[in-house]
Amino acid sequence: MQFPSPVSLQWISELIDAKLVGNTSNFATGINEIHKVSKGDLVFVDHPKYYEKCINSEASFIIINKEMEVPLGKALLIVEKPFEAYCKIVNHFRPFVPSLKLIDDSVVVGENSFLYPNVFVGKNVTIGKNTIIYPNVTIMDYCEIGDNVIIQSGTVIGSNSFYYNGKKDRGIWYQKMPDCGKVIIENHVEIGASCTIDRGVSHDTIIGQGTKLDNMVHIGHDTVIGKNCLIAAQVAIAGVTTLEDGVTLWGQVGVSKTLTIGANAVVLAQSGVSNTIEGNKTYFGTPVQEARIKQKELVWVKRIPELWEKVMRIKE
Amino acid sequence: MQFPSPVSLQWISELIDAKLVGNTSNFATGINEIHKVSKGDLVFVDHPKYYEKCINSEASFIIINKEMEVPLGKALLIVEKPFEAYCKIVNHFRPFVPSLKLIDDSVVVGENSFLYPNVFVGKNVTIGKNTIIYPNVTIMDYCEIGDNVIIQSGTVIGSNSFYYNGKKDRGIWYQKMPDCGKVIIENHVEIGASCTIDRGVSHDTIIGQGTKLDNMVHIGHDTVIGKNCLIAAQVAIAGVTTLEDGVTLWGQVGVSKTLTIGANAVVLAQSGVSNTIEGNKTYFGTPVQEARIKQKELVWVKRIPELWEKVMRIKE
Amino acid sequence: MQFPSPVSLQWISELIDAKLVGNTSNFATGINEIHKVSKGDLVFVDHPKYYEKCINSEASFIIINKEMEVPLGKALLIVEKPFEAYCKIVNHFRPFVPSLKLIDDSVVVGENSFLYPNVFVGKNVTIGKNTIIYPNVTIMDYCEIGDNVIIQSGTVIGSNSFYYNGKKDRGIWYQKMPDCGKVIIENHVEIGASCTIDRGVSHDTIIGQGTKLDNMVHIGHDTVIGKNCLIAAQVAIAGVTTLEDGVTLWGQVGVSKTLTIGANAVVLAQSGVSNTIEGNKTYFGTPVQEARIKQKELVWVKRIPELWEKVMRIKE
Repeated sequence: MQFPSPVSLQWISELIDAKLVGNTSNFATGINEIHKVSKGDLVFVDHPKYYEKCINSEASFIIINKEMEVPLGKALLIVEKPFEAYCKIVNHFRPFVPSLKLIDDSVVVGENSFLYPNVFVGKNVTIGKNTIIYPNVTIMDYCEIGDNVIIQSGTVIGSNSFYYNGKKDRGIWYQKMPDCGKVIIENHVEIGASCTIDRGVSHDTIIGQGTKLDNMVHIGHDTVIGKNCLIAAQVAIAGVTTLEDGVTLWGQVGVSKTLTIGANAVVLAQSGVSNTIEGNKTYFGTPVQEARIKQKELVWVKRIPELWEKVMRIKE
Repeated sequence: MQFPSPVSLQWISELIDAKLVGNTSNFATGINEIHKVSKGDLVFVDHPKYYEKCINSEASFIIINKEMEVPLGKALLIVEKPFEAYCKIVNHFRPFVPSLKLIDDSVVVGENSFLYPNVFVGKNVTIGKNTIIYPNVTIMDYCEIGDNVIIQSGTVIGSNSFYYNGKKDRGIWYQKMPDCGKVIIENHVEIGASCTIDRGVSHDTIIGQGTKLDNMVHIGHDTVIGKNCLIAAQVAIAGVTTLEDGVTLWGQVGVSKTLTIGANAVVLAQSGVSNTIEGNKTYFGTPVQEARIKQKELVWVKRIPELWEKVMRIKE
Repeated sequence: MQFPSPVSLQWISELIDAKLVGNTSNFATGINEIHKVSKGDLVFVDHPKYYEKCINSEASFIIINKEMEVPLGKALLIVEKPFEAYCKIVNHFRPFVPSLKLIDDSVVVGENSFLYPNVFVGKNVTIGKNTIIYPNVTIMDYCEIGDNVIIQSGTVIGSNSFYYNGKKDRGIWYQKMPDCGKVIIENHVEIGASCTIDRGVSHDTIIGQGTKLDNMVHIGHDTVIGKNCLIAAQVAIAGVTTLEDGVTLWGQVGVSKTLTIGANAVVLAQSGVSNTIEGNKTYFGTPVQEARIKQKELVWVKRIPELWEKVMRIKE
């Protein structure tokens, strides 16, 4: 998330009770989780395995639990528990403010849009023009819905990410990351019934212009879907993944996290995408292969008995 | 959809600005999408590949973008953009009329039925006797719910179909087909929580008497489910598919479009049905095979290392 | 279900018009379905195949459609239709009482908990402290929600089980078992959007402390999930299954009924678990195998063409 305005590192180090080392007079422009950081960002790291990655990332200011050498122009904020410090900053800028009404007073709705009864819209949401929101839809805080959008019943936009800090040496192993990202639904997107689109942990989850989702599609946090994609029923896409433009995913496909599906790729039903795949090809299987290769493999499997027979005859 | 009463072709050709050729003095009794047409129907075609199929289908009146020879008794309505003309007719007879209340005044509910709080029921819906609708269910316009039906929380009946006119040479590739079909839930059907049952594009989606759906089942547009079927959790069935009576689908099965599953067939969990399959058999796998054949195949795959070993010994 | 207080067998035999045989002066402390019975329980059996199992189970009192020998201290309640008798008893103690309000007057909510607008909570539900229930959540009767719990939008807690008495010689093949179990959500559990957790048929469905569910997770009736489990999106777990502590299920995994997944097991995405599996191992595939074995199998399949080639050369 970007801060409303640049925030002094001194002030932040006091908030989280950190020792400030390096370029201490600087200002942070945002705070982000390591998957998507840019210059001016705060980031946190608490595991030695990732110290170097974080310090050398695009992020400028690193909340860390060890004194290390600081690259020029960057700063370290040294604390005992970096995860808890990160949470404290996020919660300061994005506190839990409960909604008491079905449509919050801060919601802006464009002309000619219609919200059916029983739609919940949280704080600081914008909805564009000519958009239809069907009954029993939930749109949580800070989401942006474009023009000519259709969202069908039961769909949830802006649910919390499934993203935890895990440590198995405490009673409760998994601690929720507070999420400060949002969901952006671009123009001419249509979303089926009972879909769930999680907000970004620190960046945004984006559904690109003209993309159509069937029913019961799940989109994970910080995932970016390109334009004119077609996503059939019961597809699940994990977090921080990218679909380039014109991708087609058929029913019940699963897509793993932090990968890219190239433009105009087609993934056949029930396939599982566990790695980045090139565009302009058709895929099938779990794990996916190019469909024409997978098809051949299916034929080969059927020939094993014949092969066995041949070998038996040779042995005789 | 059937029209409320027969509609003069002359009037329709004026509405869509078409050149009328053939039996011009006739009346259309309905308008349907090519998958399910009958005598008296209007249908549209805009791709040369399907010209012949449409003109020779059961449909009597063809909205088309080319002057062709007309079979005896039929008529062509020639326009530049048949898809847009089709949409114009459907939207004329089934305009978007927003609901402002949770239960529309036009809804008819039979005796001894109970609707929990927070149920949305749209226009022109009928609900039979002894039926229970749980909280947060959505039933959209023109659906018919039978007697002794149970619909559990979060379920959506009558969501729009996932059916688009696709052309990749325009900014927005996919244009929604307006749907004028409905959903018919017959007597003694029970539907789990968070299911979605799409309305028909032009015909009806039907769930047959005594059929039971578990949670998170998705049923596509114009699909017809027979009587006494059992459909377990997270099954997805695409559009225009037929399940005959007594079919059992176990959890997470996927069924492709425009196919038939024969009576009393059993499909084991996570299988993918991509073609018509015969009744009274048990199936497994993606793509499905008869379970006993698939089971053998799984055993053969485990014997490849042994086969390899045999071949290596022969080579020696 | 345990009865509010012990119930005389004499009274029950009159309610269901049964012939009472054996220890007739006893009191039943509860009624349960055969999967989970204990001493003092009533149970029913109507198929000769299961007579012995039921009579020799932990249950003390057996509703049965045949006169049999009674073990010492037990009793038989002989009726023509045991299933119908079972239903009559359950419905007597747990009658359908419709809720007319969004939050029933009997609901107890702990301090510092917040329910968003449009949450439905049925009768006799308790919600602990510091718990957040997001919009459009449904919590049905007799469920128990702990402290520091998060339930995201669209989720349904306490939906009816998918559990039927099936007989194919009548018009409606499947008759619903009335369910008298509940759902217990322990402390620090977090449940994603659009999940469904079915109540127990006669025992309880339990989600253990600190367990986190992603979106669109389905949990079947009487299933018990241990502590600190992690369950990713679109997982479906059938009824009467046990997950021990620390189990991880990745996206779209399916788990069959009445089995156990051992502590700290990890099941990779899209796998299908059809039998009990040991803890502390990683699994993959449908049906699941240990992941390292399945990985080798995937490699062997790719070597079939090479093997074929070898055999062809030998033949030459």
